Amino acid sequence: MTGSTPAPFTADDYRARMVRAAHAAADAGLAGLLVAPGPDLVWLTGYTPTAVTERLTVLVLAAGQDPVLVVPALEAPDAEKAPGAPGLTLRCWTDGKDPYALTGALLAPDGRFGISDNTWALHLLGLQKTLPGTSYAALTDAMPMLRAVKDVAELELLAAAGAAADAAFEEIRKVPFSGRRESDVGHDLADLLRRFGHSQVDFTIVGSGPNGANPHHEVGDRVIQDGDMVVLDFGGLKDGYGSDTTRTVHVGAPSEEERAVHDIVRAAQEAGFRAVRPGAACQDVDRAARAVIDDAGYGEYFIHRTGHGIGVTTHEPPYMIEGEEQPLVPGMCFSVEPGIYLPGRFGVRIEDIVTVTEDGGRRLNNTTREMVIVD
Amino acid sequence: MTGSTPAPFTADDYRARMVRAAHAAADAGLAGLLVAPGPDLVWLTGYTPTAVTERLTVLVLAAGQDPVLVVPALEAPDAEKAPGAPGLTLRCWTDGKDPYALTGALLAPDGRFGISDNTWALHLLGLQKTLPGTSYAALTDAMPMLRAVKDVAELELLAAAGAAADAAFEEIRKVPFSGRRESDVGHDLADLLRRFGHSQVDFTIVGSGPNGANPHHEVGDRVIQDGDMVVLDFGGLKDGYGSDTTRTVHVGAPSEEERAVHDIVRAAQEAGFRAVRPGAACQDVDRAARAVIDDAGYGEYFIHRTGHGIGVTTHEPPYMIEGEEQPLVPGMCFSVEPGIYLPGRFGVRIEDIVTVTEDGGRRLNNTTREMVIVD
Repeated sequence: MTGSTPAPFTADDYRARMVRAAHAAADAGLAGLLVAPGPDLVWLTGYTPTAVTERLTVLVLAAGQDPVLVVPALEAPDAEKAPGAPGLTLRCWTDGKDPYALTGALLAPDGRFGISDNTWALHLLGLQKTLPGTSYAALTDAMPMLRAVKDVAELELLAAAGAAADAAFEEIRKVPFSGRRESDVGHDLADLLRRFGHSQVDFTIVGSGPNGANPHHEVGDRVIQDGDMVVLDFGGLKDGYGSDTTRTVHVGAPSEEERAVHDIVRAAQEAGFRAVRPGAACQDVDRAARAVIDDAGYGEYFIHRTGHGIGVTTHEPPYMIEGEEQPLVPGMCFSVEPGIYLPGRFGVRIEDIVTVTEDGGRRLNNTTREMVIVD
Repeated sequence: MTGSTPAPFTADDYRARMVRAAHAAADAGLAGLLVAPGPDLVWLTGYTPTAVTERLTVLVLAAGQDPVLVVPALEAPDAEKAPGAPGLTLRCWTDGKDPYALTGALLAPDGRFGISDNTWALHLLGLQKTLPGTSYAALTDAMPMLRAVKDVAELELLAAAGAAADAAFEEIRKVPFSGRRESDVGHDLADLLRRFGHSQVDFTIVGSGPNGANPHHEVGDRVIQDGDMVVLDFGGLKDGYGSDTTRTVHVGAPSEEERAVHDIVRAAQEAGFRAVRPGAACQDVDRAARAVIDDAGYGEYFIHRTGHGIGVTTHEPPYMIEGEEQPLVPGMCFSVEPGIYLPGRFGVRIEDIVTVTEDGGRRLNNTTREMVIVD
C-alpha cells in the first residue's frame, strides 16, 4: 500500500527542502546525505514506495550536486509520479545489477555521509563494502533538527491533526466504558480518528486499571470496570502530519489518591508546557515536568522521557529528555507528556502537542486536562 | 498495532529455532547473530513490538550462550508475553541509558556478527561505534537460507494461505471489471483475502491495459475497459504465513497477439515450475522460464527475476535469479512468476508459489493458468 495522503506541497517546496538539507549537511561537515524510504524521504520528495523491500531505493543529496534518486527499475514509474520528482534525477537499476556500485559512483570515496536512521543495515553494509573509505553518521545524530522546525504550512497541518484528535476525544468521552473491553474502546477511537480525517491510525492505547501502569500497553481484552482509571493515548497521520494526545479518564467517582495523582500529573504537564520558550533547552522541559512529580514523591514512577517531536511521523526528534541541550526554536513541535505509573494498580498520563512560538509555547491539543468522568 | 496473528508454535519450537540459528551462525564463521524487530525476530521468537521506533530492541544469539533480548523497559511487559519469551532472557534499558553499551557487553569485541537486513542503520552505527573491533554481515548475505527450508507445520500454513488466495481468485473472476476502477477491484480483492482468513493484505495489484506493463503498479483510478488485459497479483499473511499469486485475466475476447503473449508466459511459468527439483540451482528456475520467453522473441520485455521466497514474509530469499547458485532443498518455498511487459500496451504475469519436494516441485496455487475471460 502506498502511504499516507501526500501533504499539499509543490515540486518547488520539495526542491527547496532538498537544497536546504544539502546545505545543512555541508554545514555539519558531511559530504552529503543518503536517504532511504521513510519519513525523511517523504519530507524531502513526497515519495513513498509501494513497499520497502531489500531492493535499494536511496536519495543522494550533496551541496552543489543535483539530487539523485537511485531506484529499482520496476519502481521508476511510481517514483516519477512523486510530487518532488521534478526536482531530482532518477537512476534506475535492474535486478541482478549492483545498486551499491551505482550509488557509490555518486559519492566522494572518502566522504562522511549522513544516512537516514531507518536505512536497512543491508544497504549500509553494502555501501561500506563498496566504498571502504566512506564513513556514516545516522541522520538523527548528525542533523537531528533537519525536520524539527516546521514552516507555516506544516504548522497548519499539525494543528489540524491535533484538532481532529481533540474531536475524537470529545466523542470518546461519551461512549460507555464500564463493561466493555479495552479493545472495543480502541476500535471506537480508531474509527473516530478516521472519521475526523486521519488516513493512518498509529496507536490507540486504552490502558485500564493496572494496564494503565504500562505506558506502552496498547489495548487488551481486559473488561473495563467501574472505578478504573483509563489512559487514552491515540494518534496517527492526517494529510501527512501527525497527532498524538493523551487524556486519563475515570469510570465513575475516583478515590482521593487517584485524584491526587491526576492533579500531580496535570501540574507536571502544565510546568513542562510553561518551560517551553525559544532558547530553553529540551532538557529544561523534562526537568520542569519531572520536578513536580519528584517533589510530590512519585519520581520513581515517572519512567519515561517527557516528550518527543512530531511532524511527518508521530515520533521523532527533538526529545525532551535529560541531557538534550538542543535549544528550542520557534516552529518546533513536540509532545509534553509526563506520567505516573503505579505497578499493578493504575497509571495517569496527560499529553499535548506543543509548538514553540516567538515568546513561549502554543498547545495544539486543547481538550480539558481536568479528570473526565466516564460511564 | 501488533503484527499478524501469531502462528501456532510453542515456546519449544522457538527455542529450537534459536538454537538452530546460533549453530548455523557458528557454522558460517560468525560469533553470533543480532536480530532486530521484523520477520527474523518473528520467526525466532514470535515477538513483534507494538511499533518499531528509534528505541533499540535486538535479540542476541551466539552458540553456547543463552539468547538475550535487549528491549526498552517500556516494552518489556509486551516482550514477556511473546510465545518465544520462555526461551530467552530479557535485558531492559531505560530512556537516557546507552543501549549499545548494554548490547556490546554481550558481544565478543572482535567478533563478526550476522545482523538482520532491516536493522536500522542508526543501530548498526551505534554498535560499530561502541565496539570498533566488531564487524557485521547482513543476514541475507551471511545466512540467506536461515528461514528458507520450511518444516511441516510451516508448509501447512503456507498451503492454507495459498488456498485462501486461490479462493479469492475464484470469487474475483466473477465480479464485473469493465467500467469499474482498478481501485474498486483492488478493494474487492483485499476484502476477499480477509474473508478467506488473511489478517494482513500486503498487495493487491490490478494492472489494467497499459498499467499492466508496470510490474509494480498497484491500483489506480483507471477505469477498466472492455478489451483490457488485467494483471491481478495479490497476497498477504494468513496465520502468520504468506500468500502471493498472479493471474492475468481479459475483459471480453482477447486479440490474437494477447492470446499468444499469454500462452508464452504460461509456457514459461510451466517451464520454471518443471525446473524445480532438489539440487537444481535457483538460477536454473530463472533460466528455464526465461528461455521460453527469449525463444519467443520477448526476452527484453521480461524485466524482473523469476521468483522470490515466501514464509513469514511475502518476499524473502531464496531468489530465482541469474547468478544465484544456491541449490534447491526440499521444503523451500518460492514464487515462479515470469511476465512479459509491453510498454504503453499491456502486461501478462502468471505466478504460483511452489515448494520443493523430494522429487520435484508442488504448487501451492492451483487455480487455472488458462486465460480467464471476465466481464
